Amino acid sequence: MTHTTHNTESLERLESEVRTYSRSFPTVFKRAKGAKLYDEQDREYIDFLAGAGTLNYGHNNPKLKKVLLDYMMDDGITHGLDMWTAAKREFLETLEEVIFKPRGLDYKVQFCGPTGTNAIEAALRIVRNATGRTNVISFTNAFHGVTLGALATTANSKFRHAAAMPTQGVSFLPYCGYMDGDSSSLAYLEKTLTDNSSGVDYPAAILLETVQGEGGINVASKVWLQGIEKICRKHGILLIVDDIQSGCGRTGKYFSFEEAGIKPDVVTTSKSLSGYGLPFAAVFMRRDLDQWKPGEYNGTFRGNNLAFVTSVAAMREYWTNDHLEKEVTRKGKIVEYRFKQMARVCQEAGIQAEERGRGLMRGLDIVDGELADEIVAQCFEKGLVIETCGPSGQVLKCLCSLLITDDELNQGLDILESCLRAVLSEKSQAA
Amino acid sequence: MTHTTHNTESLERLESEVRTYSRSFPTVFKRAKGAKLYDEQDREYIDFLAGAGTLNYGHNNPKLKKVLLDYMMDDGITHGLDMWTAAKREFLETLEEVIFKPRGLDYKVQFCGPTGTNAIEAALRIVRNATGRTNVISFTNAFHGVTLGALATTANSKFRHAAAMPTQGVSFLPYCGYMDGDSSSLAYLEKTLTDNSSGVDYPAAILLETVQGEGGINVASKVWLQGIEKICRKHGILLIVDDIQSGCGRTGKYFSFEEAGIKPDVVTTSKSLSGYGLPFAAVFMRRDLDQWKPGEYNGTFRGNNLAFVTSVAAMREYWTNDHLEKEVTRKGKIVEYRFKQMARVCQEAGIQAEERGRGLMRGLDIVDGELADEIVAQCFEKGLVIETCGPSGQVLKCLCSLLITDDELNQGLDILESCLRAVLSEKSQAA
Amino acid sequence: MTHTTHNTESLERLESEVRTYSRSFPTVFKRAKGAKLYDEQDREYIDFLAGAGTLNYGHNNPKLKKVLLDYMMDDGITHGLDMWTAAKREFLETLEEVIFKPRGLDYKVQFCGPTGTNAIEAALRIVRNATGRTNVISFTNAFHGVTLGALATTANSKFRHAAAMPTQGVSFLPYCGYMDGDSSSLAYLEKTLTDNSSGVDYPAAILLETVQGEGGINVASKVWLQGIEKICRKHGILLIVDDIQSGCGRTGKYFSFEEAGIKPDVVTTSKSLSGYGLPFAAVFMRRDLDQWKPGEYNGTFRGNNLAFVTSVAAMREYWTNDHLEKEVTRKGKIVEYRFKQMARVCQEAGIQAEERGRGLMRGLDIVDGELADEIVAQCFEKGLVIETCGPSGQVLKCLCSLLITDDELNQGLDILESCLRAVLSEKSQAA
Amino acid sequence: MTHTTHNTESLERLESEVRTYSRSFPTVFKRAKGAKLYDEQDREYIDFLAGAGTLNYGHNNPKLKKVLLDYMMDDGITHGLDMWTAAKREFLETLEEVIFKPRGLDYKVQFCGPTGTNAIEAALRIVRNATGRTNVISFTNAFHGVTLGALATTANSKFRHAAAMPTQGVSFLPYCGYMDGDSSSLAYLEKTLTDNSSGVDYPAAILLETVQGEGGINVASKVWLQGIEKICRKHGILLIVDDIQSGCGRTGKYFSFEEAGIKPDVVTTSKSLSGYGLPFAAVFMRRDLDQWKPGEYNGTFRGNNLAFVTSVAAMREYWTNDHLEKEVTRKGKIVEYRFKQMARVCQEAGIQAEERGRGLMRGLDIVDGELADEIVAQCFEKGLVIETCGPSGQVLKCLCSLLITDDELNQGLDILESCLRAVLSEKSQAA
Repeated sequence: MTHTTHNTESLERLESEVRTYSRSFPTVFKRAKGAKLYDEQDREYIDFLAGAGTLNYGHNNPKLKKVLLDYMMDDGITHGLDMWTAAKREFLETLEEVIFKPRGLDYKVQFCGPTGTNAIEAALRIVRNATGRTNVISFTNAFHGVTLGALATTANSKFRHAAAMPTQGVSFLPYCGYMDGDSSSLAYLEKTLTDNSSGVDYPAAILLETVQGEGGINVASKVWLQGIEKICRKHGILLIVDDIQSGCGRTGKYFSFEEAGIKPDVVTTSKSLSGYGLPFAAVFMRRDLDQWKPGEYNGTFRGNNLAFVTSVAAMREYWTNDHLEKEVTRKGKIVEYRFKQMARVCQEAGIQAEERGRGLMRGLDIVDGELADEIVAQCFEKGLVIETCGPSGQVLKCLCSLLITDDELNQGLDILESCLRAVLSEKSQAA
Repeated sequence: MTHTTHNTESLERLESEVRTYSRSFPTVFKRAKGAKLYDEQDREYIDFLAGAGTLNYGHNNPKLKKVLLDYMMDDGITHGLDMWTAAKREFLETLEEVIFKPRGLDYKVQFCGPTGTNAIEAALRIVRNATGRTNVISFTNAFHGVTLGALATTANSKFRHAAAMPTQGVSFLPYCGYMDGDSSSLAYLEKTLTDNSSGVDYPAAILLETVQGEGGINVASKVWLQGIEKICRKHGILLIVDDIQSGCGRTGKYFSFEEAGIKPDVVTTSKSLSGYGLPFAAVFMRRDLDQWKPGEYNGTFRGNNLAFVTSVAAMREYWTNDHLEKEVTRKGKIVEYRFKQMARVCQEAGIQAEERGRGLMRGLDIVDGELADEIVAQCFEKGLVIETCGPSGQVLKCLCSLLITDDELNQGLDILESCLRAVLSEKSQAA
Repeated sequence: MTHTTHNTESLERLESEVRTYSRSFPTVFKRAKGAKLYDEQDREYIDFLAGAGTLNYGHNNPKLKKVLLDYMMDDGITHGLDMWTAAKREFLETLEEVIFKPRGLDYKVQFCGPTGTNAIEAALRIVRNATGRTNVISFTNAFHGVTLGALATTANSKFRHAAAMPTQGVSFLPYCGYMDGDSSSLAYLEKTLTDNSSGVDYPAAILLETVQGEGGINVASKVWLQGIEKICRKHGILLIVDDIQSGCGRTGKYFSFEEAGIKPDVVTTSKSLSGYGLPFAAVFMRRDLDQWKPGEYNGTFRGNNLAFVTSVAAMREYWTNDHLEKEVTRKGKIVEYRFKQMARVCQEAGIQAEERGRGLMRGLDIVDGELADEIVAQCFEKGLVIETCGPSGQVLKCLCSLLITDDELNQGLDILESCLRAVLSEKSQAA
Repeated sequence: MTHTTHNTESLERLESEVRTYSRSFPTVFKRAKGAKLYDEQDREYIDFLAGAGTLNYGHNNPKLKKVLLDYMMDDGITHGLDMWTAAKREFLETLEEVIFKPRGLDYKVQFCGPTGTNAIEAALRIVRNATGRTNVISFTNAFHGVTLGALATTANSKFRHAAAMPTQGVSFLPYCGYMDGDSSSLAYLEKTLTDNSSGVDYPAAILLETVQGEGGINVASKVWLQGIEKICRKHGILLIVDDIQSGCGRTGKYFSFEEAGIKPDVVTTSKSLSGYGLPFAAVFMRRDLDQWKPGEYNGTFRGNNLAFVTSVAAMREYWTNDHLEKEVTRKGKIVEYRFKQMARVCQEAGIQAEERGRGLMRGLDIVDGELADEIVAQCFEKGLVIETCGPSGQVLKCLCSLLITDDELNQGLDILESCLRAVLSEKSQAA
């Protein structure tokens, strides 16, 4: 297949070199539906990327689309700053009823600028002001955004270096499994907190993802998460869970931290929160931590009303029973099984590959980032959009729509496996 | 009128105390059209706030709405990360043809997270990396956003204090008119740059708004802007114009800096860029400054495809001729005339009020923030949504839709004047 | 005269390139007495530099030397960390009796590491901890040392750049006379403090030199200093006077701030504090500001016992009557008169030279740093050690021993004037 | 014994609350000789503190005293800024001949302000400027001084907290033995450097003490030090050894790093460098790292000429043969033996005590800081000055003069053991 017919000249000429996904998928997409993307030549692609976890309910989900179009046709408020709107009220009430109450949570909700990094910046201020401490503990391989405050908590040097100035107020410690086993990381954390000469200033909070997304689909164990919560309670340190990528059902339960039975003091959410791919982000915080003065943290697009509407529809459709949760678990097992098989294929080729993940947040670590890139490129040629993550881009990840059909899922996995085998075979022939 | 029938209990209970506009306008809005907002009781309000400059073409502009609904009904890409889409290409090509080329600009375009503060953070990195210098000069009363990097350039202590940690990499100097006249501020700037012992580290860039929005509708003179550009060129310092609030025709011309005939090296834009109130932001930069490596600055919602669609429609509808520009100038004069009258009313009451502004970015500085709040409250009761700005909230501002009818505009101004007179009268009776 | 006989090979080979005074005075000094230095060839030099203000009582002052040698021969404590010693007690009691009480001061004394920059670092922590605020206001052309905390308050980019990272927690404002007249700088300061959107975070303290030494012998007026004190009192901001170079009688009175009748909350002192050129520094602070917890700020050489001994002798010898103060004023007038004459010589040659200073802290600003360097070089050849200061090294400064004889002083001034005339003459011939 | 006869009223009234050693040793010292201190009542104390490692050759060493008095009596330069003096040349030449050459070192020498923290600040700038990187790796329990740049590398929260603002540019990693064994700390360090997502920005340098002094007499193993040097070489990272406390023979060899056979790129030295307790500090750096521009880093007291004189005498007297080195090793074994015995005494009382150290830098970790304080207090009553270190002050340390006689040493150790036994006995009776 050739892409010479694509008209990309103006895109290449006018868009900044910072662009990235268009390098992996060098075509011009036109429409999308459910788990599939279509380019201008009407070529169809299975989408295992799904907006990097933003499209948990698929592209242009028809149920959400309907209520959104109705709202827009009736001239519902599109942009209302942070004024009260009927849509906002319905969102808050639905969130309370469908999500918070059944989980025993009593959070207040802050609408910040509609991106994850805005939510993280807000969360950092909440914990710093509430405790009067500046330092925050973040972990190896953490990704929490790139605005300067969030960047300080992001481990990857690619992003950090681009700031062109040092960051401050954050100490990095090893994430679950970074060293060897759950316990060594917890023991080291505990020691740095009890030893007043560890160099780690006593922190306001610990910030973590329960499954690290960009960092390589690294899954924190239940034991580790419970250990972290215990340490936080013991030392009077707040716990922030960044559920931006792993939340909204991605790992099965609505929140990724439910499985471990922990209750964060602050939760950041975005990506699939709107359900429809609309920019939206929020911070949920323990009621007593809501010490903001009016307007201390603002932003023009906080509280996207169109997103309120689709988010309500998504909560009502997918979170008033446990059907979706069960489906995610079931489909997650399919991916797990196939990824484990592929890991064995790699191992037979001498690559110490590993399957990792929870629910439909799954990674296949094949150690070598260049190899992974080749597989991504071949998959794209064969009609599968899949991306990598991890410090050297060595982890192939599946973040497909939670509503993907078994056929679509298997089709995507088949393409991936065949490309993996092809690339391994080319490699062994080259050697 | 009483608001007791409003159902706001859940909003008050669940939304963070950081909320601000809902305190000035304690009702629940339901729909909006053009220059008007409607609440749940179907009460109508003239909107002089317009999303703080986000709704230059009015609420739910029918021409933009149509193309947006068509796009959505056809399942056009809603969320595509920063992949290439047909909508993105059309946006870039239209931007080049309608906006850049006629103005002799050859910018590259970076899609960052869809908020102004994201664009500022990106712009700061662009200039720091391009020059190898860290310091950036910002001005008194500047507002450029609240994420930590942008916050460092924001002058207002309310926002700065909330960060709970010091910021760095920015020196503040007096804006045009802050001291006395254009020249003293320019002379001081020039001296700080030539004197290697001024304490102002040699900067990567100067960052400014040509009309400071949140800072109080402070208008930089042509002479001052040209002086700044000259200083930048002379000293090898880059010039960033933050056109987030003042751009997209707000001051008459598409860019607020056109009138002074200057050419910034970097421009940040957001708010009315989508034309429809959708979250969207971009950085325009001189071609040679586009030194990003792929993915060094990212964000899930960069490049909002729905916003591409409405932005294209807005550019085609309003910027292929000079009709809108002329209308803004004409209506701006109406506001100017009325604000000057009101300033005289204040002066007669012993208040040194002042009218300021360009185009439809107009302020009436009545010196006293509490007085301004009372006027805002009475206006709201009478059906006008108007807000204040300035360091002590002492400036009543008119940021109405550029498409507002003369009747609506006069109606709003009449309400404002009557409330202003009423509050002054109450005050003089109380004294 | 040739310097070929000097054995400087090992010095050049082994000492870091950071060395500076040995470049201006390329000889090897061997002994010194009063206002004179002698090199290995026994060449005599009048010393107008006097350890950059460290040798107010001359080199190896015989009265101080005697008590020091006695103390050492008796095996008095040389190094005792911050333990209590008889020498420390005598220092504190003498300081209280001779210096504090007659001036109505009730300070507590902190012995920090024996350098000025250590005292500044301590002072900054005192005011930050006492107020709970981070920001400190420093001024254009300020020099307060080069360790990172002090460096943040030092204006000169040469030192700032060498840190290779940004500094924080300090805002620079124009010093007295930097803009135009005393009042504009005070007005600007007042405005930045009352305007909550000035970009200057509300400060813990204002830090200043009453006469800027390294910055170019810039003299703050009485009116300005009193204005600063008033602003500090009005706004609850602490006042730190850095008297490291200007104190110990350099400007006439013991403290440089006495003349203006102000009372700083914190005073930093070093340089001539020991009286004998021994490393020594201290912080004097208002009793209620002494909120240190034991050992929070330490340093191996805090409280140099040998310096206690000479300092006591110096206070008793020179500060129990007003003889020295009067002599400094009288000799200062001699320098002032001669510098004004030389300024006129420059003016006749078309150079807008200016005399500045107080007491025996005097500068002749000849605008051009290269010219000043030539004069320094010729003076050295003729037997006068004199240095420059100011942002471009354009100010020739006289910081000679306060005990210099009139003959020595005039001899030095004669050398300076003849070299100045010679260099101006060479220059006019070259042109 | 009562101290009521001590006249300490003025000391308590006038000296800042930051004072610390005078709290442990509440008497007024008057003279000192060798390994002994004497107070005003002429009470004699064995000195196991020795200026916290500053008095390696004892108090008022007569050989050094003689040359110092001679120099002073001849009016040798006392204070000469950084001008060339005969004393400086002799110091540099002796340093080269006696110390550098026999060890195969080719360093350049920077004279910074005469305190350890000044040397650290200089070293940090050297490595940052040479590599263009900002981050520096420091270790748990590190102490490198308290000025802001050095403080950033100091682990103890007591000092860090007092800064009242966050520090930056430093990442802390576990020191040898902090986790479990040499290898885990090295493995973790290696991983943070090779993993670009560790959160540890690629560093300019690794900064370490080979034996941590204030941190608790923690001894890095040869294997660990060699491992660190290897990692530095492999990754192009510079190695700074802070030999301020552990150098000048304290651990046996002149430099503490000699035993491991490593060659730092930069060495900081102070404390016993003068040999006589005079304030003095220097940075030794690899010749190619001397990239300073003249005067970029300065300080009034850099290059203390009196210290040059005593330092030369000390080098000639003690470092031209291996007698002292052998004595330190021999006496160190005495302390080691006795401390191990005392550790056993503690263990029998149920305290997991541990002996640690090299040469005459020895610690007895008795786990409990309050217990250690009681022992210190009782020792003082019995005529032994001994101090504690470690994060909770739980380590009794012996830093006595290297020239202490066996009798004095044993006398001190006897006092310590008897007090230790007494306190343990009191404690067991109380329980």
